[in-house]
Amino acid sequence: MSHEYAKEVETLGKVILTGDRPTGRLHVGHYVGSLRGRVELQNSGEFDKVFIMIADAQALTDNFDDPSKVRANITEVALDYLACGLDPAKTTIFIQSQIPQLTELTFYYMNLVTLSRLERNPTVKAEIKQKNFEKSLPMGFLTYPVSQASDITAFLADTVPVGEDQLPMIEQTREIVRSFNNLYGETLVEPKAVLPSNAASLRLPGTDGKAKMSKSLGNCIYLADQPDEIRTKIMGMYTDPNHLKVSDPGNTTDNPVFLYLDAFCKDEHFERYLPEYANLAELKAHYERGGLGDVKVKKFLNNVLQETLEPIRTRREEFAKDIPYIMELLQKGSEKAEEVAAETLRRVRHAMQIDYFGK
Amino acid sequence: MSHEYAKEVETLGKVILTGDRPTGRLHVGHYVGSLRGRVELQNSGEFDKVFIMIADAQALTDNFDDPSKVRANITEVALDYLACGLDPAKTTIFIQSQIPQLTELTFYYMNLVTLSRLERNPTVKAEIKQKNFEKSLPMGFLTYPVSQASDITAFLADTVPVGEDQLPMIEQTREIVRSFNNLYGETLVEPKAVLPSNAASLRLPGTDGKAKMSKSLGNCIYLADQPDEIRTKIMGMYTDPNHLKVSDPGNTTDNPVFLYLDAFCKDEHFERYLPEYANLAELKAHYERGGLGDVKVKKFLNNVLQETLEPIRTRREEFAKDIPYIMELLQKGSEKAEEVAAETLRRVRHAMQIDYFGK
Repeated sequence: MSHEYAKEVETLGKVILTGDRPTGRLHVGHYVGSLRGRVELQNSGEFDKVFIMIADAQALTDNFDDPSKVRANITEVALDYLACGLDPAKTTIFIQSQIPQLTELTFYYMNLVTLSRLERNPTVKAEIKQKNFEKSLPMGFLTYPVSQASDITAFLADTVPVGEDQLPMIEQTREIVRSFNNLYGETLVEPKAVLPSNAASLRLPGTDGKAKMSKSLGNCIYLADQPDEIRTKIMGMYTDPNHLKVSDPGNTTDNPVFLYLDAFCKDEHFERYLPEYANLAELKAHYERGGLGDVKVKKFLNNVLQETLEPIRTRREEFAKDIPYIMELLQKGSEKAEEVAAETLRRVRHAMQIDYFGK
Repeated sequence: MSHEYAKEVETLGKVILTGDRPTGRLHVGHYVGSLRGRVELQNSGEFDKVFIMIADAQALTDNFDDPSKVRANITEVALDYLACGLDPAKTTIFIQSQIPQLTELTFYYMNLVTLSRLERNPTVKAEIKQKNFEKSLPMGFLTYPVSQASDITAFLADTVPVGEDQLPMIEQTREIVRSFNNLYGETLVEPKAVLPSNAASLRLPGTDGKAKMSKSLGNCIYLADQPDEIRTKIMGMYTDPNHLKVSDPGNTTDNPVFLYLDAFCKDEHFERYLPEYANLAELKAHYERGGLGDVKVKKFLNNVLQETLEPIRTRREEFAKDIPYIMELLQKGSEKAEEVAAETLRRVRHAMQIDYFGK
């Protein structure tokens, strides 16, 4: 990077870009995997700009036959965001499809990525298999990593908080940035991924123990769930199938109940709800040597989750009373985001020498 | 198509969309293969709107490492257009990259096309081979048929004058239109291809007899060529390699000199330049039975081409004196084209239910 350019990028400050596909309400997996961390980053004071994108255009790449589902979930996701503490005064929340510059960038970045490179992307490979796309792979889906590179670079984001499965996307973005800057001169910023610091938050399983949480499997606890729904889901959780009697020794490492505790509970929760243990390590030790029943652990998890989710649900219900306000907020966010993306596109077009009429 | 929609499309009138990649000056192959026909269509009075696109963004899909070449050739192609008789008062000439709506349409159409479908496209397959892209195929190049579908449908074009090699592109566009209309409701117009009526004009060979004309092979006669360049190229043309002596019988079917006459000469040219023959059939018969030398035929072709190209070159030189006027014309054309594309995109976004804020 040239000296002048390094200085220019420095003045842009530290910028975050991240987001979610609006294909359903957000659940506790989203919360510990990204939402909680985003709110912390937002409030850390370390970032000059935070952009959170509701990725409707990306959601359409594998939901193109059901656009009303995507449309309906935009407000759901926005409510989840606000409920978790994302603050429109600090964070620009916007809708991907409202930023036309993103498709222009995607179009030009496609020249810098080969078919074989996209076919090697491990995340896309796994998703193609999971969605049975092998025989009829839509191009929009295959190329969504290029679209993600546009989303990130349009905002000159240097920091992208992601889950572990998204690391190949950030690597693809970094390659595109390097190719672009090499070919057309220093223009784009190479981003870095930020993973959740808590290992258990990287991939929370479903309540049935399956790795993937999904609406169709009915194995998710949603941020909008009512207290009795949360309780029912927790009391029905899959645990260690070999832990048949209370006296049996139990496994805590593949046990969803303990994995949820890893992600959610703090020592203070023990003081309030289970004072006979000082911390999670003591609880696990008891379960592993035998003599601790699943019901007791689940009741504790229920207390922890109810305490965590109660303020989120309350705020969500408050915001849900005024959907026109949510839409206005998304419109304003989208307008602000478009201004930033338009400036980046102006640089990109200048670098590519396609700014014939000075735009 | 619903009755209401059929009526609506009828009011749109008959619309032409076609264009060229700005990778070099246009030559006689472009002239007989498309330019001559476009001018006839433009002046036929049968079309309500004619759009001619300088496809710089498409040219960048296989010239992304040389954007200055593409940029430089935009004015060259525009000069060739005006020189051939395309009239800005009747035809909107515009630059592809200046119409951002085209990349938005491409983005959404990508969801409706599979990888295997694109890989089956015979034109793209042949071009991949020719460009040695097998190992490192840029995605922008593989997907350019989707981009072409955007170009055509953005202007609701029902008529696309093309060369024979472009027929698979029109078929791809028709498939995308049908998929889109099926999924999201009748929105787009299914176009049809129009081929040159003169068979010889479908694929004029290079002056060396090679099927492909290319700058690097030095086998093209350009519309901007000076009279002595034209003469030198014609007198050096490849003919029938077995026609060694004047008395030898000659082949006229694979013989570039006769293929050029097929595409260019009219009976009136014989009156003026070779009155001992009434028409091309008589000239061919003499050549085939022997006794007619190549030089005599080449001199005749030279007269025909000089007569055809002289007014084109003169007009070109006149327009070339005022490049700022050309740029102004392209800017105005691009603004007009953008208005039309924006209206189509508005319909598309409404059909896809992504017009959250009424746009």
